[in-house]
Amino acid sequence: MKKGSIKVSVIYPNSEGKKFDMDYYCHKHVPMVGSLLGDALKAATVEMGIGGGAPGSSAPYAGMGNMYFNSVEEFENAFGPNAHEIMGDLPNFTDIEPIIQVSEVMI
Amino acid sequence: MKKGSIKVSVIYPNSEGKKFDMDYYCHKHVPMVGSLLGDALKAATVEMGIGGGAPGSSAPYAGMGNMYFNSVEEFENAFGPNAHEIMGDLPNFTDIEPIIQVSEVMI
Repeated sequence: MKKGSIKVSVIYPNSEGKKFDMDYYCHKHVPMVGSLLGDALKAATVEMGIGGGAPGSSAPYAGMGNMYFNSVEEFENAFGPNAHEIMGDLPNFTDIEPIIQVSEVMI
Repeated sequence: MKKGSIKVSVIYPNSEGKKFDMDYYCHKHVPMVGSLLGDALKAATVEMGIGGGAPGSSAPYAGMGNMYFNSVEEFENAFGPNAHEIMGDLPNFTDIEPIIQVSEVMI
């Protein structure tokens, strides 16, 4: 993604007994978000946690979803009106409270 | 990045009084890592934290660096022999202890 783009990451911390349905996330949630955000969303990526820094350790995060926008303003304008519907879908695939990180792409 | 690729994220949690020299990170550290890992490293990205989920909130993470590999084995073979030199460079740009996440690219 080009330098200066805005990356919004939704990061799901792992903890014992928590659930995360990666199949639903990839095949229902992410397409729904893409459809709601429309052209403002330049790209989306999803990763599943498989390990940590030490060999054999568990992943700090069960999964991450990343959305790219041209600017914070375009993100806010696209996300704001759909926030309720998007956040309302979370219980369908997880009981983890996500961490939201807004970043600027440097490299 | 194509589905099934391995993404290794080095994530620097923000906290008061901690330092993170993004200029050194982008212009010295990341190129050094790229040069040490060679062809095994398929791509690298860097993001700087600029905000959190709530308007005006601070970023949970000061920065993130992401490295992409074809497999966990290729990552381990490339990183292992260089781990000492790479980790030894951290005090040159930060006093934050990073979180390491190994992920599989789903989308």
